[in-house]
Amino acid sequence: MLTTFHVDDRLPVIVEKIVESYDRLERTRHIDRLYLPSRSETVEIIEMLLELAYPGYHGRQGLTRHNVQYHVGELVPKLGEKLFRQVDLALCYQAEVDGCLKPGERPCAKKAQQVTIEFIERIPAIREMLAGDVQAAYDGDPASVNTDEVILAYPGLLAVSVYRFAHELHGMGVPLLPRVMTEWAHTVTGTDIHPGAKIGKSFFIDHSTGVVIGETTEIGDNVKLYQGVTLGALSFPKDERGRLIRGHKRHPTVKDYVTIYANATVLGGETVLGEGSVIGGSVFLTSSVPPYAMVTVKSAELKIRTRADRPRLNGAGKPDLVE
Amino acid sequence: MLTTFHVDDRLPVIVEKIVESYDRLERTRHIDRLYLPSRSETVEIIEMLLELAYPGYHGRQGLTRHNVQYHVGELVPKLGEKLFRQVDLALCYQAEVDGCLKPGERPCAKKAQQVTIEFIERIPAIREMLAGDVQAAYDGDPASVNTDEVILAYPGLLAVSVYRFAHELHGMGVPLLPRVMTEWAHTVTGTDIHPGAKIGKSFFIDHSTGVVIGETTEIGDNVKLYQGVTLGALSFPKDERGRLIRGHKRHPTVKDYVTIYANATVLGGETVLGEGSVIGGSVFLTSSVPPYAMVTVKSAELKIRTRADRPRLNGAGKPDLVE
Amino acid sequence: MLTTFHVDDRLPVIVEKIVESYDRLERTRHIDRLYLPSRSETVEIIEMLLELAYPGYHGRQGLTRHNVQYHVGELVPKLGEKLFRQVDLALCYQAEVDGCLKPGERPCAKKAQQVTIEFIERIPAIREMLAGDVQAAYDGDPASVNTDEVILAYPGLLAVSVYRFAHELHGMGVPLLPRVMTEWAHTVTGTDIHPGAKIGKSFFIDHSTGVVIGETTEIGDNVKLYQGVTLGALSFPKDERGRLIRGHKRHPTVKDYVTIYANATVLGGETVLGEGSVIGGSVFLTSSVPPYAMVTVKSAELKIRTRADRPRLNGAGKPDLVE
Repeated sequence: MLTTFHVDDRLPVIVEKIVESYDRLERTRHIDRLYLPSRSETVEIIEMLLELAYPGYHGRQGLTRHNVQYHVGELVPKLGEKLFRQVDLALCYQAEVDGCLKPGERPCAKKAQQVTIEFIERIPAIREMLAGDVQAAYDGDPASVNTDEVILAYPGLLAVSVYRFAHELHGMGVPLLPRVMTEWAHTVTGTDIHPGAKIGKSFFIDHSTGVVIGETTEIGDNVKLYQGVTLGALSFPKDERGRLIRGHKRHPTVKDYVTIYANATVLGGETVLGEGSVIGGSVFLTSSVPPYAMVTVKSAELKIRTRADRPRLNGAGKPDLVE
Repeated sequence: MLTTFHVDDRLPVIVEKIVESYDRLERTRHIDRLYLPSRSETVEIIEMLLELAYPGYHGRQGLTRHNVQYHVGELVPKLGEKLFRQVDLALCYQAEVDGCLKPGERPCAKKAQQVTIEFIERIPAIREMLAGDVQAAYDGDPASVNTDEVILAYPGLLAVSVYRFAHELHGMGVPLLPRVMTEWAHTVTGTDIHPGAKIGKSFFIDHSTGVVIGETTEIGDNVKLYQGVTLGALSFPKDERGRLIRGHKRHPTVKDYVTIYANATVLGGETVLGEGSVIGGSVFLTSSVPPYAMVTVKSAELKIRTRADRPRLNGAGKPDLVE
Repeated sequence: MLTTFHVDDRLPVIVEKIVESYDRLERTRHIDRLYLPSRSETVEIIEMLLELAYPGYHGRQGLTRHNVQYHVGELVPKLGEKLFRQVDLALCYQAEVDGCLKPGERPCAKKAQQVTIEFIERIPAIREMLAGDVQAAYDGDPASVNTDEVILAYPGLLAVSVYRFAHELHGMGVPLLPRVMTEWAHTVTGTDIHPGAKIGKSFFIDHSTGVVIGETTEIGDNVKLYQGVTLGALSFPKDERGRLIRGHKRHPTVKDYVTIYANATVLGGETVLGEGSVIGGSVFLTSSVPPYAMVTVKSAELKIRTRADRPRLNGAGKPDLVE
């Protein structure tokens, strides 16, 4: 009787065929290449950043005004080491992709050092932004009890926090790493914010799941989004060889004090939502809206079923109707 | 050549500026405060509760009618310890926020003990509810093979299970902890159920992602929801100082035997979905619906593209059209 | 003063009542049964499969053309052991459920051995499909920088990769395990693809969250979906005893070169989206669409608020409007 797996003499053939498929399909293998950032290390960096941003809420507890400087003094160099390593890998990765990396060289360490220091120096300014986001969440949600709850439990704040860190690195020219950061947040929160998007002060996303904010979106101050909102592209122009043109503005501009309700979709690089405008739930919008306008969907159709339908409820215990 | 990160003489200034930002932004730091529940401990509590609720499916396997009582007898005090500790932290957290905590005191341990015991005593009754939810999932989804699959793999059941535990603790006056529990479930399942919502027997959420059920929602028995359904608030009244009024009924009432299909949005504290009503996919609804009614969206517009558009398919191999 | 939890003399009663609820509610306990696949082991299998599918991106780094065959030669038997064990458990689980398992027997080991070997032999062919999916993601998203980014960070690719593995096992008659695999991907990516769905070459899901692809869906080649798209069932026929009829075609057929934009819902087993058709964002569709057709929602209603509404912006700093 068989009780464990055995591959026997078939193993060499299986291995050979898998390796052969690596030879053939070069875009899905990372072989004979030196550099690639690590997702697990990147997640550790995010956790350290959250610990610095929200001390006592993330990571170590029991902080006091007396011990906090030692805690920060210990955490910052640890974060620096890790971040330096991943920024260095990301920069060398790009140099390798671009074919401008000579064997034995480490041309990226100096820039990685600069980027890392500069990024860490910006942490207080990023915290200032995050404090505005925390307050906006509390002010914008009648279900929130206090700002502690927002920091501990609101996925929208987590997504925005990770975005703000990633956006800084993105702006400093670090490849790949910022996207790995925001995609981790996407997994945890259901909110997909491209690190290239520009987002103003006091931004709040309530309930978080399904929100998509595209790469070239521009969002003003005091904007509030609900679950399922897409700020997306309308169409993708292609070049004469039929390839997508990358990099131009494809996503909407959202001015100050705009609110966009659940599951609304707003598309297009020339679409501007004017200051103070309100986009209703489930609205699908591909053109601009003037300031202070309110856009709503046309009302649904109501059909009343006849009495004849009602006995079905007694059958399987549930209505059994088309939809 | 630089190969590791060095902060040098800039470290003291960096640390000072970060600590200074803690002094300035007090709502995003938890410093000089004693109490806060722990998310990681709370997740361990959820895992123990799932192990008690669905023995043999979660946690330890190989249970028999002979060993199960020893397993439960060992698990319950472990759960009790952990839960007591977090309930105590949550209660003391609230007392500290309210400013009624004297130094050296532990005024919450007695209530934490009572809450913990009472909660554990309710586990059999909660299991009764969960058994109804499992059956509702099997009865409501033709793709489900059996109830084992529902318990092992259905995110909707996981979200509802965690909600039912959190709702009990919420009803017993435990702050913060219930929300941390349901937000963990939100991360894992994409379903955001506020612990304050009231949900009847035999509740089923299919596919789970993007569902939002607000704090003051009331749901009857035998209700079925699909992915992307929002039961949300319509508008938020404010007091004379412009602050949100918290605590009044803002979310819909859903009567027995209602089905709400994918991505429908139902808003408002006075919105009542009558018994047996059916809300179609993508419907956006802000007013009440009579019993046995069926609500559907108006049909979409169909445009047929001309033959001239078709050759584009041969270019980049894909249709290239606005939308 | 109480500082730790104590259950005292109430423990025996509590344990007894919980065990009693296990006796009473048999469908939510896995007691006195021998077989059930393990979710944590299944997740490890997925990680090994991703490591084989995308060498150097997942799992071990630093692969070269010289060491890669040893790496694969070591990984394949480890994967085989783990997969064999879970397939065996899944098959025996089914035999036990069907009541055709005699005590002391292991009737599934032989089939588990066959399935495991056959599945591993298909890995190169699955990689071929995945390479097409990677390319489709790069070609279909102007925000993607290169295929490395797609493999490292795109949740849509992860969901489709896990689906392709699970679909093979599903087609080989392995119960339960494929669904546990796709539900893990659902948790991580927000995309719910039933392992029974049929999906052609070069498939891309952008942004990923909220997508649902039902069990009997059939999708052609070169199809692109966006976040929130549902390919679902329209209604569930029941048998004469009011029970759902399982197994017939309930979900749409999507032909080659179709694009379905964000949050569109397409329902019904007889609904066919013709070749090259484009379904616009937020469309709700329950009937077929001819080839090359374009379907869009009717436009939203625009209301311009009067000047009288505008001063409210100065109150609480935010517009305060119904929706």
